[in-house]
Amino acid sequence: MDQRLHGGILNYEERQSGEYLDYSVNINPLGLPEFVKTAIMESIPLLERYPDPECRKLCRRLAEVHGHGLEENQIICGNGAADLIYQLVNCVRPRRAMVLAPTFSEYELALESVGCEVRHFVLSREEKFQPDLKALCRAVTKDLDLLFFCNPNNPTGISVSREALGELVGTCEKNGVLLVVDECFQEFLDEPERATVIPLLGKNKNLFVLRAFTKIYAMAGLRLGYLLVSDPVWKQKLRERRQPWNVSLVAQEAGYAALGSQGDEYVARARKLILRERGRMSARMRELGYLVYPSEANFLFFEVPWEKEENGETLFSFCMKRKILIRDCSNYRGVEQGSYRVCVRTERENEVFLSVLEKAKQAEEMRKKN
Amino acid sequence: MDQRLHGGILNYEERQSGEYLDYSVNINPLGLPEFVKTAIMESIPLLERYPDPECRKLCRRLAEVHGHGLEENQIICGNGAADLIYQLVNCVRPRRAMVLAPTFSEYELALESVGCEVRHFVLSREEKFQPDLKALCRAVTKDLDLLFFCNPNNPTGISVSREALGELVGTCEKNGVLLVVDECFQEFLDEPERATVIPLLGKNKNLFVLRAFTKIYAMAGLRLGYLLVSDPVWKQKLRERRQPWNVSLVAQEAGYAALGSQGDEYVARARKLILRERGRMSARMRELGYLVYPSEANFLFFEVPWEKEENGETLFSFCMKRKILIRDCSNYRGVEQGSYRVCVRTERENEVFLSVLEKAKQAEEMRKKN
Repeated sequence: MDQRLHGGILNYEERQSGEYLDYSVNINPLGLPEFVKTAIMESIPLLERYPDPECRKLCRRLAEVHGHGLEENQIICGNGAADLIYQLVNCVRPRRAMVLAPTFSEYELALESVGCEVRHFVLSREEKFQPDLKALCRAVTKDLDLLFFCNPNNPTGISVSREALGELVGTCEKNGVLLVVDECFQEFLDEPERATVIPLLGKNKNLFVLRAFTKIYAMAGLRLGYLLVSDPVWKQKLRERRQPWNVSLVAQEAGYAALGSQGDEYVARARKLILRERGRMSARMRELGYLVYPSEANFLFFEVPWEKEENGETLFSFCMKRKILIRDCSNYRGVEQGSYRVCVRTERENEVFLSVLEKAKQAEEMRKKN
Repeated sequence: MDQRLHGGILNYEERQSGEYLDYSVNINPLGLPEFVKTAIMESIPLLERYPDPECRKLCRRLAEVHGHGLEENQIICGNGAADLIYQLVNCVRPRRAMVLAPTFSEYELALESVGCEVRHFVLSREEKFQPDLKALCRAVTKDLDLLFFCNPNNPTGISVSREALGELVGTCEKNGVLLVVDECFQEFLDEPERATVIPLLGKNKNLFVLRAFTKIYAMAGLRLGYLLVSDPVWKQKLRERRQPWNVSLVAQEAGYAALGSQGDEYVARARKLILRERGRMSARMRELGYLVYPSEANFLFFEVPWEKEENGETLFSFCMKRKILIRDCSNYRGVEQGSYRVCVRTERENEVFLSVLEKAKQAEEMRKKN
């Protein structure tokens, strides 16, 4: 596998040495909330116990939090959202599936792992990677088994409203295609309630919604995600194909605490920070000549126009030398050389990052002059 | 799934209410070591990071600890040993496999989840569930793809030496049958070095050894196990079929700490406690008329002779009323009604447990008199 797939050509230990400011992973810049840390600490004396295979306490709480008539048996917790992608693919064993391009690479990797033929719906750079939903609906034919749709999309950060997604949901329903809407970054949107398709679960049995604690609660090292299904039969189907204890007790306790009364304030604070810093970063980067796409998530997708010529130093390597990791997106399908993704972090960190981008621009100007 | 499969007819939350003394799970009675608790606490500030998909630091340490020329790329960490059972089965997708009976139920459940035909090598009660290895070797034919062998066996606690297993390893090698030796309880044996087949990995490419941190370090709620393979190609094969971040960062840190300098003393102390208490429990239970099998692990398998008649109260229900959970083994293949498994706990706890067994015996005597 490409070493750069999930950020950097460094190995894991080099990346985590503390030497680098990591702009390649899309984690809430507020960090793991204190009230979740407390819950983790308090769970330590319980760790001798096996975790609940059904994650009952957490599922009950998730049902309460989400509302929309969602019931406990429509919620399946996993060892991170990626676990659920593999579980679902492994259970369905689709013969033909579709993913958008560019998008999160694990869908395709999971599909390939079961020998599935993967079709790509390539997003057009000319249309700023906005999905043409009419064209996508036409591409959803009866011979497809499964479609992954990431909203907001990773790496572009572009989101689509629930209203706009209605026809796609209906087309998948009509053609017997399972539709997985990955909403793992949805809490970072300014108006997540406008985008989520959770209210459509009640009437669309082929619809699945994927969510994660990983990003919004900054608990990537703990692993916790969940899948919302329309038909509770999927809970049993997935259960039969996995080990019983896939979600650790500590992750269940941390997730439960995250959904407590302090969680709302934390998420609101993160959303506000992201909104402000994303705007500030985009504006500054555009001033410097970078081509920034209109992300609505906690990360920015952009191009370095002068890297198209393939001379001079890449921004990736320029940043790396200055101890900043950014995500080189040129290995994404449908993405050109000189395309990058960076996360939105705190103001202080973003200042450091922006100053490096400024230096990169200056270096390019010097190069051109000589 | 039978609710009693992993102990008790109570649901998870009832079992964990603190009301019950749990003799149905086989966890080190010394509990999660303090030095591991410290490592967990210290990992909390790191939990915003994704875990290392390759668990490099932990694998390097495991290679050092195990010796026998074992290299880092022969070690595959998993989200508990059960994760690795499912990963391996899912990767191999065997058509025909064999398990012993009785044994740990997850082998068969994993095999069934991929539609594998499962053959049973039934252990004879008359031979005290000791495996007849000559007969087992004859049963290992070329049309088998996979064989699971649990050593010491769960639920019986009976172990077999490496010397005795040599022929089985050779037969599997010769017939192209993958042999998974589950050594998850091996650290509890008085002489684990006599039983482990790790030294045979070098020369037998079909051999796999499964190990867990769960039991010996009492960290069932954290999830950590590992698979030792002869051919490093399996590391890549399994990797291609799973999500990248299946082992949490906190589990990796806890595992690394468990293998530190204080680990040996802790394991030695546990072994000593188990040896003493297992002997004491067995002796007392036999005096009372229970039929106790010669376990070498941290649990005891026994029969209640008077339950064969199917009258009176079962020991399971007698104990439950007195807030003690024991494992009813009558749903194991090849096991009779009135068979149970209990773990070995601390002296003080075992006194409570033994006094309940004494009362059960007295109740039976009263019943007979009337």
